[in-house]
Amino acid sequence: MKTYRLASIPGDGIGVDVTVEARKVLDRAAALFGFALEWTEFDWSCERYARHGSMMPDDGVEQLSAFDGILLGAVGFPGVPDHVSLWGLLIPLRRAFQQYVNLRPVRLLPGTTSVLAGRKAEELELVVVRENSEGEYSAIGGRHNAGRPDEFVLQESVFTRVGVSRIIRYAFELARTRSSRVCSATKSNGLIHSMPFWDEIFAEVALEYPDVHSEQMHVDALAARMVQAPDRLDVVVASNLFGDILSDLAAAITGGLGMAPSGNINPSGEFPSMFEAVHGSAPDIAGQGIANPVAQILAAAMLVEHLGETVAAQAIRTAVDRVLDEGRVRTPDLGGTDTTERLGTAVAETL
Amino acid sequence: MKTYRLASIPGDGIGVDVTVEARKVLDRAAALFGFALEWTEFDWSCERYARHGSMMPDDGVEQLSAFDGILLGAVGFPGVPDHVSLWGLLIPLRRAFQQYVNLRPVRLLPGTTSVLAGRKAEELELVVVRENSEGEYSAIGGRHNAGRPDEFVLQESVFTRVGVSRIIRYAFELARTRSSRVCSATKSNGLIHSMPFWDEIFAEVALEYPDVHSEQMHVDALAARMVQAPDRLDVVVASNLFGDILSDLAAAITGGLGMAPSGNINPSGEFPSMFEAVHGSAPDIAGQGIANPVAQILAAAMLVEHLGETVAAQAIRTAVDRVLDEGRVRTPDLGGTDTTERLGTAVAETL
Ligand SMILES: CC(C)[C@H](C(=O)O)[C@@H](O)C(=O)O
Ligand SMILES: CC(C)[C@H](C(=O)O)[C@@H](O)C(=O)O
Repeated sequence: MKTYRLASIPGDGIGVDVTVEARKVLDRAAALFGFALEWTEFDWSCERYARHGSMMPDDGVEQLSAFDGILLGAVGFPGVPDHVSLWGLLIPLRRAFQQYVNLRPVRLLPGTTSVLAGRKAEELELVVVRENSEGEYSAIGGRHNAGRPDEFVLQESVFTRVGVSRIIRYAFELARTRSSRVCSATKSNGLIHSMPFWDEIFAEVALEYPDVHSEQMHVDALAARMVQAPDRLDVVVASNLFGDILSDLAAAITGGLGMAPSGNINPSGEFPSMFEAVHGSAPDIAGQGIANPVAQILAAAMLVEHLGETVAAQAIRTAVDRVLDEGRVRTPDLGGTDTTERLGTAVAETL
Repeated sequence: MKTYRLASIPGDGIGVDVTVEARKVLDRAAALFGFALEWTEFDWSCERYARHGSMMPDDGVEQLSAFDGILLGAVGFPGVPDHVSLWGLLIPLRRAFQQYVNLRPVRLLPGTTSVLAGRKAEELELVVVRENSEGEYSAIGGRHNAGRPDEFVLQESVFTRVGVSRIIRYAFELARTRSSRVCSATKSNGLIHSMPFWDEIFAEVALEYPDVHSEQMHVDALAARMVQAPDRLDVVVASNLFGDILSDLAAAITGGLGMAPSGNINPSGEFPSMFEAVHGSAPDIAGQGIANPVAQILAAAMLVEHLGETVAAQAIRTAVDRVLDEGRVRTPDLGGTDTTERLGTAVAETL
């Protein structure tokens, strides 16, 4: 029997609540579909930071590197600055493991309604392919004249040919398995160094895929299109920052952040990939058992899909669809009064 | 009789079509409300660039500096790179005249429907206060190792204490005239130099306005809120790039880009302010007489409001509302078959 070694990092807030449920569903799927999961749990979190002064141990990356996959809850807690919690865990892992693809598929799930008027489910299915290793999220920069009236900060964006080509190529490959349409987010009229470079590489790569329809839009117009004509979008490829914004927007029009999974993927397989919900740790509702576990369960499905267990992945998605469609079990964000645990169990049992 | 000297720069594409109508409405308003307008038209555009090699003459800024206000159409045409057309006209004017506020009010106009399901007009009224002079739109940056596999570009963002404080303070002042609520767009968890600085200044300024409710959201979550709970937003203050994206999104949920005006404002009055539609030059429909002139007419209303002619400004807005509400005259984007000229004339006559 095939055995996968998985790392679980529940993290903070509702990350902990939803990760339990995702593991429950994965364990059930493994039993049903003939593979084994060997879990190791890591308590890396803001709580750990409070106790030990760091989000993860110095050899954290090394400890994780032998795993077949990582399930991450969410990171962040009031009192711990984001640049500590996120740049001490999430961001370094994305980079150390060269998870340069952040894949964020959304679709309108059964039993949920869109905030957009009159849109049918089939008009609301798209995927944001977000660059996940460079771009606007750079540690380069700093402050000058601190504390003086003429104080200013610089924040550098870094776009490399290697980094931009590989994410765009990934998007075109993905488009071939879907609608054969790619839309690239640019802003070359405002960001006159980075975005013309991005556009240039997009045009070059597009030439290699004459069978794929390619277009580009300024990110402002693309955000507008996402709410005005989402049916005209399928694969959207975007820089780190633009992909972050557009994928939250995509989640918002398809049932909300409680439903949107995300994969941090190292396509070569050299390093483990990491799966998480798009939502954050939501400290305000943490530990109350009311968080919606669907996003994390769908992230878990992406994980096993990435491992090659496509039948199990599809079965998990179908089980989620069925539970939502029946509408018997609904967490508060879905208009019900059920707990995180009830919804997780319902999906596991429906499998 | 008070006389204002106005510069008109119709620019490119539909900018030309809609500016004619906005002038028509302004001239009528002047006649009715007892002030005079003295127009000077400038042919600065991509066409001029094609003929003379520059978007505007070398002394362009100087030529404009004595005017009381500027009405700008739109800039950009296929074949002329954006960094030429926009950085040769729009952006340098915004900066030379220290128009550091880009004010972008939206509301759901009568006779139009929102793409958001079940939202009433009163839930869809907000204003984006966009920083307009620095931030992510910086000319600093460049390319290294051009043409080599290890090629990369750097793009610098620049945030100054002066620049950030003044835009945030403007937003708080504006909030006092509206709902007394300000929401600041941040992304301090990803952009760890620029955005913590922005947040710090936001917190400092907020202390000076204890009567105004202030909050901040990450731009990704804020974009999501704009479509999920727009009624919870009123004054949104944002950096140059974030404000660009959020204001397009705000326009998209309130009837589309054909309806959204924008003011590039120099609050001290030392230099002229400049008013334009949020939409671009839309070359695909230019010259066909089908563009919706409402955004530009509302921009013209902002212009006279800025000059102190508040009664005339309000009258123009009321006339627009009435014409849209009646629904007799509608351009194609509003579901009708009327021309740009018909809609402009209808507003002028309704005044
Ligand atoms: C044309 C472009 C440079 C401009 C901007 O991003 O400032 C436009 O999108 C706008 O919003 O005025
Ligand atoms: C928490 C934050 C740094 C992160 C990001 O922007 O990458 C989050 O918003 C996400 O989308 O995964």
